[in-house]
Amino acid sequence: MSEEKRLVEQITPMDVDFAQWYTDIVKKAELADYSGVKGCMVIRPYGYAIWENIQRDLDSRFKKLGHENVYMPLFIPESLLQKEKEHVEGFAPECAWVTIGGQTELTERLCVRPTSETLFCEHYKNIIHSYRDLPKLYNQWCNIVRWEKTTRPFLRTSEFLWQEGHTMHETEEEAREETIRMLYVYRDFYAETLAIPAIIGRKTEKEKFAGAVETYTIEPMMHNGVALQGGTSHYFGDGFARAFGITYTDRNNQIRYPFQTSWGVSTRSIGAIIMTHGDDSGLILPPGVAPIQVIIIPVAQHKPGVLEAAAKLRDRLAEKFRVKLDDSDYSAGWKFSQYEMKGVPLRLEIGPRDIENNSCVLVSRPTREKTVVSLDNIEDGVKAALERVHRELYARAEKNLKDKTYDAHSYDEFLDIAKNKPGYIRAMWCGDSSCEDRIKDETDGVKSRCIPFEEEHIANHCVCCGRPAEHMVVWGRQY
Amino acid sequence: MSEEKRLVEQITPMDVDFAQWYTDIVKKAELADYSGVKGCMVIRPYGYAIWENIQRDLDSRFKKLGHENVYMPLFIPESLLQKEKEHVEGFAPECAWVTIGGQTELTERLCVRPTSETLFCEHYKNIIHSYRDLPKLYNQWCNIVRWEKTTRPFLRTSEFLWQEGHTMHETEEEAREETIRMLYVYRDFYAETLAIPAIIGRKTEKEKFAGAVETYTIEPMMHNGVALQGGTSHYFGDGFARAFGITYTDRNNQIRYPFQTSWGVSTRSIGAIIMTHGDDSGLILPPGVAPIQVIIIPVAQHKPGVLEAAAKLRDRLAEKFRVKLDDSDYSAGWKFSQYEMKGVPLRLEIGPRDIENNSCVLVSRPTREKTVVSLDNIEDGVKAALERVHRELYARAEKNLKDKTYDAHSYDEFLDIAKNKPGYIRAMWCGDSSCEDRIKDETDGVKSRCIPFEEEHIANHCVCCGRPAEHMVVWGRQY
Repeated sequence: MSEEKRLVEQITPMDVDFAQWYTDIVKKAELADYSGVKGCMVIRPYGYAIWENIQRDLDSRFKKLGHENVYMPLFIPESLLQKEKEHVEGFAPECAWVTIGGQTELTERLCVRPTSETLFCEHYKNIIHSYRDLPKLYNQWCNIVRWEKTTRPFLRTSEFLWQEGHTMHETEEEAREETIRMLYVYRDFYAETLAIPAIIGRKTEKEKFAGAVETYTIEPMMHNGVALQGGTSHYFGDGFARAFGITYTDRNNQIRYPFQTSWGVSTRSIGAIIMTHGDDSGLILPPGVAPIQVIIIPVAQHKPGVLEAAAKLRDRLAEKFRVKLDDSDYSAGWKFSQYEMKGVPLRLEIGPRDIENNSCVLVSRPTREKTVVSLDNIEDGVKAALERVHRELYARAEKNLKDKTYDAHSYDEFLDIAKNKPGYIRAMWCGDSSCEDRIKDETDGVKSRCIPFEEEHIANHCVCCGRPAEHMVVWGRQY
Repeated sequence: MSEEKRLVEQITPMDVDFAQWYTDIVKKAELADYSGVKGCMVIRPYGYAIWENIQRDLDSRFKKLGHENVYMPLFIPESLLQKEKEHVEGFAPECAWVTIGGQTELTERLCVRPTSETLFCEHYKNIIHSYRDLPKLYNQWCNIVRWEKTTRPFLRTSEFLWQEGHTMHETEEEAREETIRMLYVYRDFYAETLAIPAIIGRKTEKEKFAGAVETYTIEPMMHNGVALQGGTSHYFGDGFARAFGITYTDRNNQIRYPFQTSWGVSTRSIGAIIMTHGDDSGLILPPGVAPIQVIIIPVAQHKPGVLEAAAKLRDRLAEKFRVKLDDSDYSAGWKFSQYEMKGVPLRLEIGPRDIENNSCVLVSRPTREKTVVSLDNIEDGVKAALERVHRELYARAEKNLKDKTYDAHSYDEFLDIAKNKPGYIRAMWCGDSSCEDRIKDETDGVKSRCIPFEEEHIANHCVCCGRPAEHMVVWGRQY
């Protein structure tokens, strides 16, 4: 038992130090490693397998809606980045610049892409001529660089992986529809695949993407009450099209500017999984992205027939699930702890008595609940158990989100919650960014998350300045 | 017909100007576009879909052999790149350097990875301690930057996409086996998926990878007789392990250095597909990677029942093949030319008479051969026809490779072939790189491709200097 204990003891309890708990999980579950390259991480096989599952799921959602994948250059010449004024102001401070190529100083320095609106626009200018060329529904899976001073694996690194959709449309209406459609794709992906509920809504003027007309966001709440921006979807109007001179001939033979969107989800989503579902025994992975959905652990594996039965079961389940049999020499107890730490959603135990009874035991990672299931219809049993894990994870996260969301009717109340109760604060707002600035200053970092789609009129006046309220805003601290 | 003619006429015939023919195909088949970023290309949806099919195929071959995917940083600090002397000397001249990050001059400049041996080694140093940690069989899908002055889409660009496998092993023997195993994986992939035969062998000392002990290569011949390095597999010995201080405790409790390999295939393989199979009507894609394997073109589509029958057929075939129905208003003739140019391996025509006969017509892209197939077992008919296309493409390319491979027994003969007959030259070699230099100079670019695995002793003396011959070498010009 001492070995098992040691394994679990390596993880700092959440309540003691959430940040350290997070780092411990990333390291002990072998998701990522620090690299000697400042601000960059190594995504290890177990972490990358989660990302591959995220990619497969999102990519098929995109393709079902008609999106096509492309690949744009890594570099953006400075003059190209500068074409849209707000955009360059937003991103220039965090750019990494290539100034030397092939041993010669470049005449124009190149930014390593922090996002690719400018590159897509340059290409769209070449290929969009007529309404027949619209819509263009492109997406790209790639790496991105935004220079960061302090970094944490998955949450904030100078380089990260993501997908960025960039679309062009004939009309404002169509582009606005696409912006919202993709936000809901993200909402569904978070709910159905990651088992993560979230608030969705529109960013305030102050918090929107550099160059966008509107930014929509999905804001799941982490276990400790802190928000993580899970994905964003932007409506650009025709601002970039005008800046880049992209025009098309419409159905009435008029020259017009097309309307644009972009939307992205990154490897931060892995950070969201860790901090939404994990516990003091380690990671808990939603079945939708778990590299191993079922870990089979033979009990008393030295007894005749146990390993054979376990292997047979593995082969049978492998047709429908991502399954692994651990027949190594470690003790069953050690294996239990190990795969709990790795967050495998379902453990299947099989020993001599189970074999005798033509059954096995399924253990849910989040609840540790044990179920005896007949081997006759084990596929159905495993499927149902994985679905239960997903529902349990979603329900827990939803409870956390509800329990840690507070309404503030006065500024004193707001400051008190901000100081003492980690979570989201729902409060009315006048629409002026100076109130956002004041709140941020006086709470040491609470910011507007979004104007939620499910707005409620909980008061008539701005919680901060008392002027007439325009909107309800969800406020919170963020990663 | 004039529209159709124009479509085909846009492609310069191969025999007139092979380079222009290549560029025309890349552009007209919408595989890639030039970008305003010097040396970088835009991979368009049709080209990227080919890359996705290549990735899926190779990735499953790797995973079947136990390889795992990871992700390493984009940047290599200069000091890290310099740890292995030969390696840095080989790559430093083509590095792109980041010197400014987040508006401040960096204290150490960062190279945008031209290959990732150094990053993998740095990580391996952290995670390899015991023989139990070996082998490590890692692979990475990513972008790579090697600064180029003159560029051509897919063949030579400053940025390209690839996979790079990096493995570590307990013994030299095991690492050498891995090196050869992965070369054969590439050979099989090229043959079975791309329908491209190739010569495989070992690079000479002069041509091997910077820092490698041995480099193995797969060298398919393009239609015009020029070689394209299709993939390489390197054995490193323990050179990098020593330079990076990677050690492990072996089974006898001794501290040892592990043995290393790396191997890669890039988006150049798309260039190989174009130049191996294409003809004057456009691209020809092997069914294994074609984004559309079967294009269904309704004939006399205004007649009642034609579009319905075509759509029904599409839905039926879509369960087993990548299939598209073009029911647009363009003429059937225009569509024929269009999908020939796009290289769709199989065309399926269905019109009123076919429907009456419960049949359809299949047309092979490479041979234009027509086959009437019953709709009853259309799936089998399509499967057989696609297999025939694959065999036909492989056979053509194999004939081209054989027809354009010449034996040279004297230096005069060598120079004559090099001047007048594009292709490979098989000739004996003394083992001295000065003969390689002389040949390159006196033939304006003919280089040693490899010492082929299927070596023949065709003479006793070096074709260049007359000294005793060590090996047969396959020589040729390259992309």
